[in-house]
Amino acid sequence: MTPPSDRATEPRFLRACRRQPVDATPVWFMRQAGRSLPEYRAIRERHGMFDIMRTPELTAEVTLQPVRRHGVDAAILFSDIVAPLMAIGVDVEIKPGVGPVFGRPVRDDEDLAQLRPLEPEQDMPWMLDAIRAIVGELDATVPLIGFAGAPFTVASYLVEGGPSRDYAQTKALMLGRPDVWARLLETLADMAITSLRAQVDAGARAVQLFDSWAGALDPATYAAHVMPASARIFAGLADLDVPRIHFGVGTGELLGLMGEAGADVVGVDWRVPLDGAWTRIGRDKAVQGNLDPAVLFAPWDVVGREARAVLQRAGGRDGHIFNLGHGVLPDTDPDVLTRLVELVRTS
Amino acid sequence: MTPPSDRATEPRFLRACRRQPVDATPVWFMRQAGRSLPEYRAIRERHGMFDIMRTPELTAEVTLQPVRRHGVDAAILFSDIVAPLMAIGVDVEIKPGVGPVFGRPVRDDEDLAQLRPLEPEQDMPWMLDAIRAIVGELDATVPLIGFAGAPFTVASYLVEGGPSRDYAQTKALMLGRPDVWARLLETLADMAITSLRAQVDAGARAVQLFDSWAGALDPATYAAHVMPASARIFAGLADLDVPRIHFGVGTGELLGLMGEAGADVVGVDWRVPLDGAWTRIGRDKAVQGNLDPAVLFAPWDVVGREARAVLQRAGGRDGHIFNLGHGVLPDTDPDVLTRLVELVRTS
Repeated sequence: MTPPSDRATEPRFLRACRRQPVDATPVWFMRQAGRSLPEYRAIRERHGMFDIMRTPELTAEVTLQPVRRHGVDAAILFSDIVAPLMAIGVDVEIKPGVGPVFGRPVRDDEDLAQLRPLEPEQDMPWMLDAIRAIVGELDATVPLIGFAGAPFTVASYLVEGGPSRDYAQTKALMLGRPDVWARLLETLADMAITSLRAQVDAGARAVQLFDSWAGALDPATYAAHVMPASARIFAGLADLDVPRIHFGVGTGELLGLMGEAGADVVGVDWRVPLDGAWTRIGRDKAVQGNLDPAVLFAPWDVVGREARAVLQRAGGRDGHIFNLGHGVLPDTDPDVLTRLVELVRTS
Repeated sequence: MTPPSDRATEPRFLRACRRQPVDATPVWFMRQAGRSLPEYRAIRERHGMFDIMRTPELTAEVTLQPVRRHGVDAAILFSDIVAPLMAIGVDVEIKPGVGPVFGRPVRDDEDLAQLRPLEPEQDMPWMLDAIRAIVGELDATVPLIGFAGAPFTVASYLVEGGPSRDYAQTKALMLGRPDVWARLLETLADMAITSLRAQVDAGARAVQLFDSWAGALDPATYAAHVMPASARIFAGLADLDVPRIHFGVGTGELLGLMGEAGADVVGVDWRVPLDGAWTRIGRDKAVQGNLDPAVLFAPWDVVGREARAVLQRAGGRDGHIFNLGHGVLPDTDPDVLTRLVELVRTS
């Protein structure tokens, strides 16, 4: 544990996660490392997603690109929610323009046998080497956020065999075979714990659990079939001195439960005004968000107005991390992101 | 206006829309006419979507198929939200597996010139002939629901040029060129009014306005840039003696506004428990919904349990129309739909 006396000089991102006073609202962007940057596209022309992830120098480079360019207050490990599955040898590939596609979808206990426990140092040394390289390069004021997919969202890809709009097979398994579903989610929760603990051990100073598609669920179903596995992850990290962020899209009805699951910070998409969202989450948590990423395609005066509206709804209260409500869209002008960082920092 | 004395014998669907007592909760399904039915697929093997829409006998046949098979309490015109645009000669096609695709997306005032006023009897006699044929076949206890896309959702296809996940161009136009956007939405509102009035004149006894993708917006943006055009439609139908249903997906934050726009009935997706949704909408409105369509892929005992939970949340109160929270998924077993109708009718 960092002694309290040292914490006063901690990076503003970490201070905001802990709802401590900050000199300016910290800002970073989900998918800040990605296709909005020409320097990222140049690398992607020559390397696939998994190539980049399995090559520590490349992972470090694309993770650091947005920090250099935009001056954001946090880096986030360039990864994918299926990285640990790929690492243990599950038959998965990332199809361009589609997403992760699995050779053998999980529908019953036999399919579950594909999922052995993750041993990070053996299975994904590339990820840990990348983290060590990134942390060596980063200024001490810019923490690295570790990255993991939440059990429901990872399971949705595994059960459907790829991306889905309606999650019909996922929900059918969840409701029709709750025993198999619970084993699947527990297995994925343990993989996330193991992965995130190893990431923190390698130098990550916060973690974000991406339950991107949890918003497809009603609250009762979420509480019964998803929240226990996510709560298991947050509990499994509680002894580490790192803020835990919990994020999903379209989660207006779930925000309270997502906080209750044990996160220190809850990410909010743009659909719920941030002040109301914070009330649902509880004032004992920090919040992250929530500018609509599509707003960045409007003229700058509109972007500025909408960004200030987000800051205003946060009320200048300690415990707000400025972010978009979802990831940076690929066609976003990177100069708008840089300008947005300046606006947030000087507001 | 139907004299009140005649209304006691009105179909239970219409009575529920008006929050009058019913002998059983009425039930129908969005996309009940569609790919879940083998008899529909047989027709689609030989005919494209627009072929079916432009051939009154085929439109009537596919509209009536689910009424015959499931015994639902309402028919809904088989159509598409782009039908009026196709009818006035806009360059649009429905690409299988994709959706509506436009030859010339709308991005400025010049593009708006494509959109001339709709003259239903000249531009889409096939739709009105189909309605007359359907109404001639339907039992008087089963009303036909007219069909139109709401301005935002139709505009999103027009501006993006096709389906979208993030509506970046749509929101950029809305926020960056609010003058052009307002003209576009007003034009689309007038087309919807004209189309729905003609549908009612031909025999439709209720109308549903599909703002399927309105849930992509936060409440302030919806209220400023979308709600006025939708309200214009409901006001433009107020003199007709037909219930007006307003539906969208992921609209938890918008339910109150969607009712305020002037609907008699607000459709609710599965993300918000129906009792809480009704409170947001206001008890002076009827509600429609809201079983998760993905639940129909679970075993029957789960389907029955979840359907009863929806009925229970409606509290046996007058003014509930049972439906799914979104359209029937293509791979749904039609026998489950039939069984669900029986369950709702006998609960």
